[in-house]
Amino acid sequence: MRIGVLGTGIVGSTIASKLCALGHEVMMGSRAAGNGTALAWAAGAGPNASEGSFAGAASFGEVVFNCTAGVHSLDALEAAGAGNLAGKVLVDVANPLDFSQGMPPRLSVCNTDSLGEQIQRAFPEARVVKALNTLNCLVMVDPARVPGEHDIFISGNDEGAKAQVCELLGSFGWPAERIVDLGDIAGARGAEMYLLLWLRLFGAVQTGDFNVKVVR
Amino acid sequence: MRIGVLGTGIVGSTIASKLCALGHEVMMGSRAAGNGTALAWAAGAGPNASEGSFAGAASFGEVVFNCTAGVHSLDALEAAGAGNLAGKVLVDVANPLDFSQGMPPRLSVCNTDSLGEQIQRAFPEARVVKALNTLNCLVMVDPARVPGEHDIFISGNDEGAKAQVCELLGSFGWPAERIVDLGDIAGARGAEMYLLLWLRLFGAVQTGDFNVKVVR
Repeated sequence: MRIGVLGTGIVGSTIASKLCALGHEVMMGSRAAGNGTALAWAAGAGPNASEGSFAGAASFGEVVFNCTAGVHSLDALEAAGAGNLAGKVLVDVANPLDFSQGMPPRLSVCNTDSLGEQIQRAFPEARVVKALNTLNCLVMVDPARVPGEHDIFISGNDEGAKAQVCELLGSFGWPAERIVDLGDIAGARGAEMYLLLWLRLFGAVQTGDFNVKVVR
Repeated sequence: MRIGVLGTGIVGSTIASKLCALGHEVMMGSRAAGNGTALAWAAGAGPNASEGSFAGAASFGEVVFNCTAGVHSLDALEAAGAGNLAGKVLVDVANPLDFSQGMPPRLSVCNTDSLGEQIQRAFPEARVVKALNTLNCLVMVDPARVPGEHDIFISGNDEGAKAQVCELLGSFGWPAERIVDLGDIAGARGAEMYLLLWLRLFGAVQTGDFNVKVVR
């Protein structure tokens, strides 16, 4: 499959590399084609890897991953272009973490709204699925880094899009029974607001290789 | 031990009954002594149970549980009286859930502050420990309702107070290794903001008998 990955940071490059390793054709998108980090990634990630602008990557992808910093995601997606996202599954991995006031970060949106919802409203023809944002990126693409059973969450308005994301997550190593469907895209509120607990848990366990399991 | 439990709702009565069953002397506090719900609870909960005003219960208790509705907790604690709380462990179980705008509830405080922190600031001589707010109240006092291992979180500035709360939680059935210390009282942000995820998980699993386990 052709996949666009927006964002050149550690999350974007980790997901993009995993997708390449799985045999997908992946274009990493950044503010302007020719970004040094994206070029370096593409050079190292094999023949299926390329890079381009946000618009180039969104146009290229049949599925698009938003791995930009959450506080810049709406701008990045604007640059990607509504037309290039229309009808496509848009996996929103971003967290709206605002570090501008120092540590701990605050969320730039929460409680009665979420980044996932903002994106879905701004791009109504995109099929937004919030996923993977509750994890360190290494665990996102390799759940076995955390031993035993543990869960991830998806939220989105489009059942078909969620099913397609579950398939991709399955190829990352997430079995269907470990993917908890939180319902519509407003479920992103919970998944994003969990980040403040995640940060404290990270402080408690002193490793990014952790996750939570829903026990019932 | 003498324990004051502020709040006559399902959380207050569940915790108060458990504490009675464990042999503690428990006074349930409400806005005015002689509250019908509190009287009925005290009549049914055995010889160790009594009821009184918020101030009466806070004065009575060596440890005080805040089980009032989060949006009213500061008022209730004001009525309880700073002097009656000074030096005491104050276990804050409340969630600042605001249902006034309908469902889903919003949090009346979050992101850069929390109810736990507000309480600690308003009552600097109380030794506030945020605990148990991430669970259905039946699971709070009977963790075995959810099979297997699962975790709760505590936050607070006073290590001695946290140790005392861990002992009480142990008597509820929570082994020490299943109590995750999130650090100072600002950890309450994460524990309270988790509620929006909890509500979605509740919708997904269709039972209050669930919890999360931190897997690493």
